[in-house]
Amino acid sequence: MEDDIPPLDEAAMEAARERQANLTKPPGSLGRLEAFSVQIAGMTGQETPTLADPVITTVAGDHGVVAEGVSAFPQDVTAQMVSNFANGGAAVNALSRNVDAKNLIVDVGVAADEYPGRDAVIVEKMGDGTDNIATGAAMSAAQARQVVEVGRGIVATHAEEADIIGLGDMGIGNTTPSAAITAAITGADAETVTGRGTGVDDEAFEWKVSIVRQALETDAPDPQDGYDVLRSVGGFEIGALAGIALEAARRRIPVVVDGFITGAGALVAARIDERVTDYLLPSHSSVETGHEIQYDELGLKPLFDFDMRLGEGTGAALGISIYQGACRTLEEMATFEEAGVSN
Amino acid sequence: MEDDIPPLDEAAMEAARERQANLTKPPGSLGRLEAFSVQIAGMTGQETPTLADPVITTVAGDHGVVAEGVSAFPQDVTAQMVSNFANGGAAVNALSRNVDAKNLIVDVGVAADEYPGRDAVIVEKMGDGTDNIATGAAMSAAQARQVVEVGRGIVATHAEEADIIGLGDMGIGNTTPSAAITAAITGADAETVTGRGTGVDDEAFEWKVSIVRQALETDAPDPQDGYDVLRSVGGFEIGALAGIALEAARRRIPVVVDGFITGAGALVAARIDERVTDYLLPSHSSVETGHEIQYDELGLKPLFDFDMRLGEGTGAALGISIYQGACRTLEEMATFEEAGVSN
Repeated sequence: MEDDIPPLDEAAMEAARERQANLTKPPGSLGRLEAFSVQIAGMTGQETPTLADPVITTVAGDHGVVAEGVSAFPQDVTAQMVSNFANGGAAVNALSRNVDAKNLIVDVGVAADEYPGRDAVIVEKMGDGTDNIATGAAMSAAQARQVVEVGRGIVATHAEEADIIGLGDMGIGNTTPSAAITAAITGADAETVTGRGTGVDDEAFEWKVSIVRQALETDAPDPQDGYDVLRSVGGFEIGALAGIALEAARRRIPVVVDGFITGAGALVAARIDERVTDYLLPSHSSVETGHEIQYDELGLKPLFDFDMRLGEGTGAALGISIYQGACRTLEEMATFEEAGVSN
Repeated sequence: MEDDIPPLDEAAMEAARERQANLTKPPGSLGRLEAFSVQIAGMTGQETPTLADPVITTVAGDHGVVAEGVSAFPQDVTAQMVSNFANGGAAVNALSRNVDAKNLIVDVGVAADEYPGRDAVIVEKMGDGTDNIATGAAMSAAQARQVVEVGRGIVATHAEEADIIGLGDMGIGNTTPSAAITAAITGADAETVTGRGTGVDDEAFEWKVSIVRQALETDAPDPQDGYDVLRSVGGFEIGALAGIALEAARRRIPVVVDGFITGAGALVAARIDERVTDYLLPSHSSVETGHEIQYDELGLKPLFDFDMRLGEGTGAALGISIYQGACRTLEEMATFEEAGVSN
């Protein structure tokens, strides 16, 4: 299952490129939109792909490292926000509706057994959050493999009808494992990849950097092994997001990354199977400083920078409207010949 | 009519700001989206504005200056593209459909009396294109005033139900008057504001710069007088776009600018009534070099840069999805209290 992410469909890309050249506009005048449409043709294997059925997966998990005081918010907020997602009241719900996307809410390790709205949540709990990465591994090697399979299974079971998938996350404290993953995989310094999360001050920032360093020293992972990085300094939602990306790629479904946490998931996925990167599309550039380093490592250039730092899939949802637009121009525009326009 | 563009509604903005602070997300974590939602609240006078009914106005006109060989395309293409718009086959049609926008096609001076699809076009023809700005004024002083009124009338008659208006243009050769307008109004040098339009080479570029200079020397307009700039170096579609922006602002309808030509229209509008700038929203950053100078003059920062240079309203249509998203988060998200999330 892991060995068969197909290469981009060159024939579909060539057909899309040729079609773009004959559409009623000066060649290249739609800029990156044209490139995106060709790339998505290659992903899907369709000359004129449509993205009418987007799915955004918002995956939640808790993190033992919150015991170190790395977050400005209490851990309870993870479960409270999952309830909020289930009730349609969060930012990602509003932005999913904006692009007619189905929003799948997934609990892979929220530290609460019961919460309002749980019936509307896909619950595949790996535990009540990860262990504290400052003092040991986040999870066992078996759990690291299992949570990636959970992500794969979500795509297999629930998102079969999706023609594009946006990644999203929720988990109080999850910028800390994401920073550790990014440092481990890219080799960047802990300070460079550590951001301020959602509202920590200078002192808290220094503290957070020291915790990231400690996590990487306590149980140094093999940076070439995605599963080992996940085991050592990961998070359950991050592992599931990696699995979602891998399975989507295997099924030729384009994947839109969101902010810093989904970026960490994408890095893990790329270490498990580097061919997944062919199927990744960028969205916004996050306020989180390590986000740019992730994009560089993945070979992606963000679509826009709106100073966002919320996660949930909010940036991915906004990005999907751009990809829908790109594919619509490829599919719906008339050619010079059809329109009787001089070329 | 011209004297009553209202100021932004401070009470609505304050209410929107307060609401944003209570929505289930860390304060400020939606970045520019929050600022946009507050600004649009101020424009519309509504605490939670909805942008369910966008309109994109694609306004076409021809330009006498094409006689100087400033464009890589023959003038016939203007009318051919208007037919293409009317038949729904152009990029702006596809991108309008992408955000459920109504697309109004307007002919204010296409150099063709008959063309396929004319019945679906709002025809308010000021002439068969402007006069050649390289050798004299583009139009008479009376025409400059009249074409702005035509733009106002389009909003009054056809776009009354619009809750946001995207500006778009079509006109072979219209980057040349747009460069001249931008140089005249901002004081920037002709070379700085002249771009390569849709596909001219180095030699053609030098030639185009010389024509822009000549236009500004032949009939130097009063840079403080929007109507005079329009008369001297303008275009019919550019004047109508200025009128659309002015009338939309008067009716508290947000206006999304597109590329370099609509930017020239916005500059003219701002010289006619500077209060219009309160109602202008940016979209993409065009490949046209003078576009950034226009944005600076208008006090706007673009949303994104996709290397686009097509016009028609294509960038505005993409931008509208972002503004729709911003307003949806403001309106549809739950507050901390409603969702039972710890603040």
